[in-house]
Amino acid sequence: MKPYEFSLTGGKLAGPSGILELMDDLGRAMTVDPSMRMLGGGNPAAVPGMQSLIRQRMNELMSDGDALERMLVNYDPPQGNPRFIRELAALLKREFGWDIGPQNIAITSGGQSAFFYLFNLLAGRFPGGRSKKILLPLAPEYIGYGDQGVDPDMFIACQPAIEWPNGPAGKVFKYVIDFAAVEKALAGGNIGAIAASRPTNPSGNVLTDAEVARLSDLAAAHHIPLILDNAYGTPFPGVMFVPAKPFWAPHAVVVLSLSKLGLPGTRTAIVIAPEQITKAISSLTAVVGLANGTIGQQIVLPWVESGKILELGPKIIRPFYEEKSRLATGWAREFFNAAGVDWALHANEGSFFHWLWLKNLRITTRELYERLKARKVLTVPGEYFFFGLNADWPHRHECLRINFSRDAETILEGYRIIAEEAAKAAA
Amino acid sequence: MKPYEFSLTGGKLAGPSGILELMDDLGRAMTVDPSMRMLGGGNPAAVPGMQSLIRQRMNELMSDGDALERMLVNYDPPQGNPRFIRELAALLKREFGWDIGPQNIAITSGGQSAFFYLFNLLAGRFPGGRSKKILLPLAPEYIGYGDQGVDPDMFIACQPAIEWPNGPAGKVFKYVIDFAAVEKALAGGNIGAIAASRPTNPSGNVLTDAEVARLSDLAAAHHIPLILDNAYGTPFPGVMFVPAKPFWAPHAVVVLSLSKLGLPGTRTAIVIAPEQITKAISSLTAVVGLANGTIGQQIVLPWVESGKILELGPKIIRPFYEEKSRLATGWAREFFNAAGVDWALHANEGSFFHWLWLKNLRITTRELYERLKARKVLTVPGEYFFFGLNADWPHRHECLRINFSRDAETILEGYRIIAEEAAKAAA
Repeated sequence: MKPYEFSLTGGKLAGPSGILELMDDLGRAMTVDPSMRMLGGGNPAAVPGMQSLIRQRMNELMSDGDALERMLVNYDPPQGNPRFIRELAALLKREFGWDIGPQNIAITSGGQSAFFYLFNLLAGRFPGGRSKKILLPLAPEYIGYGDQGVDPDMFIACQPAIEWPNGPAGKVFKYVIDFAAVEKALAGGNIGAIAASRPTNPSGNVLTDAEVARLSDLAAAHHIPLILDNAYGTPFPGVMFVPAKPFWAPHAVVVLSLSKLGLPGTRTAIVIAPEQITKAISSLTAVVGLANGTIGQQIVLPWVESGKILELGPKIIRPFYEEKSRLATGWAREFFNAAGVDWALHANEGSFFHWLWLKNLRITTRELYERLKARKVLTVPGEYFFFGLNADWPHRHECLRINFSRDAETILEGYRIIAEEAAKAAA
Repeated sequence: MKPYEFSLTGGKLAGPSGILELMDDLGRAMTVDPSMRMLGGGNPAAVPGMQSLIRQRMNELMSDGDALERMLVNYDPPQGNPRFIRELAALLKREFGWDIGPQNIAITSGGQSAFFYLFNLLAGRFPGGRSKKILLPLAPEYIGYGDQGVDPDMFIACQPAIEWPNGPAGKVFKYVIDFAAVEKALAGGNIGAIAASRPTNPSGNVLTDAEVARLSDLAAAHHIPLILDNAYGTPFPGVMFVPAKPFWAPHAVVVLSLSKLGLPGTRTAIVIAPEQITKAISSLTAVVGLANGTIGQQIVLPWVESGKILELGPKIIRPFYEEKSRLATGWAREFFNAAGVDWALHANEGSFFHWLWLKNLRITTRELYERLKARKVLTVPGEYFFFGLNADWPHRHECLRINFSRDAETILEGYRIIAEEAAKAAA
């Protein structure tokens, strides 16, 4: 059959994209090919402490009169469940002194949808033929943002400085925001918002409190929002191994998610923002999706009411992933040193990703990814995380994102094979 | 604080919209103001037979090893759950002979998202400065479509003929497609797809098999898809009171939903389409929303595997709503005749809506809606359903959509008050 013609918008958004490939790989490995060693994707682990809490809560919902039926058979308003929103606003105000109320919160169908709405609200085409971009102060940034612009060229990203906290022999590097580059980009005058994930997906970097404060000041000075993607961060789920304060300001847009608490299947994210923006997000939810799923909000509601949601990170989630990180780092050292390749890991300050830097390969990490997939080790090639950069930077072909959250044997075997393939491809 | 500037796309999609008002009204009535008589919105009823099946199935999931945890902690691929898709394709092929496979199915986060994707794929701006529209062969059409275009003026709608099956004294009218108008619109050459809901939301009209066949022929002749929104229709959930065949063709896009089975809180819809289109929908899901909720698909999976999902309509859902329709129609006759207003109802062939036509009011139905809301009766004013029509048509200010799916007392009281207010406003 002759193909149908797609519109400019449809053709752009539905074209091949990194996030589609990533999610397809992930989903198929999770549901179709159990022999694949799953070090790709951002699927959280089945954290035993969380799993039993979730099961307990589902049992509660099942035995609480018709709570189950009410949850499933009713639409929430597009803004989200009124009680959930009220309780969350109260908790954040009480615990952190954020000057917010229910009018500053909107629920979306997962974080990806929140960013689709935020980016396309604040950047793209504007009246009078003007256009604006989203400024990413530190590349590499989250693969899922890259293709979200309805309009082309939605992002401008800044190349970071690279520091070696223990010297290059320590094999650990850290990205640091190059504020001269950020200020230069802002001076262009066409920036609609500054956005960063914290912890950074993919690198596991955590922007320091000082870096966030400085970004916030710059955003305020330019009267644009500072968007923080806290999907792995603070105040929950708290997959962070270094101290970092929960950040809020009147011009901040803070995005939280239930996914890394162990509930990605519920598609639930939370946008905390100036009322003008939460109102727009609610409208977008109504027009694009009618309403949000109800289940995630109902599962965590009592933990929001009691404040327990803030303890899940420190007590259950962080210790689980911290141990995974420790083990994975050990295997990385062991296998990569033994393989004699030129390697380094980004400081794993948060998230459950290792960001592996392989220097002096004869091939790109895109090619390495294919070779690893053929050996049943799924990772994510780094190339997808460097969108929005002007200059070509060899570094973009030298990194691999590795999810270390699965069982020890899978991770150990995965690192062994990655080291083997890296050695084969070494220059 | 000085407001932020929104982009052209963001400003358009996040502006005031009928669907936002409708969903806000609905959600608030369901969660905040229980004294409101809820005859607005499209919330399904808690159908006892379905509720117990759903509870039973949840119990099954809870007791089936770690099925609950696997469902909640894992992302599906953007296309949807592979097993669910495979089983559904097999069922539809086996039962109806549709020539489809898993590659022809994509899951979306509810029907509203499916239509956002479909409309913006097939209409809007095209290369070379061209633009295309979605042709709605029979206005009034679903309020939720009206504001979904990323680009402006996305729809062209055709005014239907009006028939009186039992003569005007019978007080029952039926919209019939004006095929001359449809062919004239198609002749313009800028139509990207034909789209219709079946049963029609808001009117409860069911396009006849002959009407659908003729639309299909016209679409095929113009090499454009025919999109059918079967959210209330066939093969499930089957909220239909007249015979109508499930329709499929190689160029058909058939959208089904789990919402009217009693699962709107899970946000699950199904797009059956040419592979080019399901691939694009999967890409859009990845880019806009990462993945779909997993829960709806897991709840109904065994009913798809066994084919039981096709019996739920005839055995449980249709009888429930048919009785509601019978009662509501009786009260409408009683109260409107007694009030002495000039009224008629569209033939209620499907859905759980009455489409009330009040002629000779001194006010618009938009104003009547406000007066009714003040008296704690929530309806939906008809004005929102007539988008895409060129000519002004007085009829657009004379109709009210009434959801008759709630308890008898609410509906009876609602109709009594509507009749009272209509009498007060009669010319």
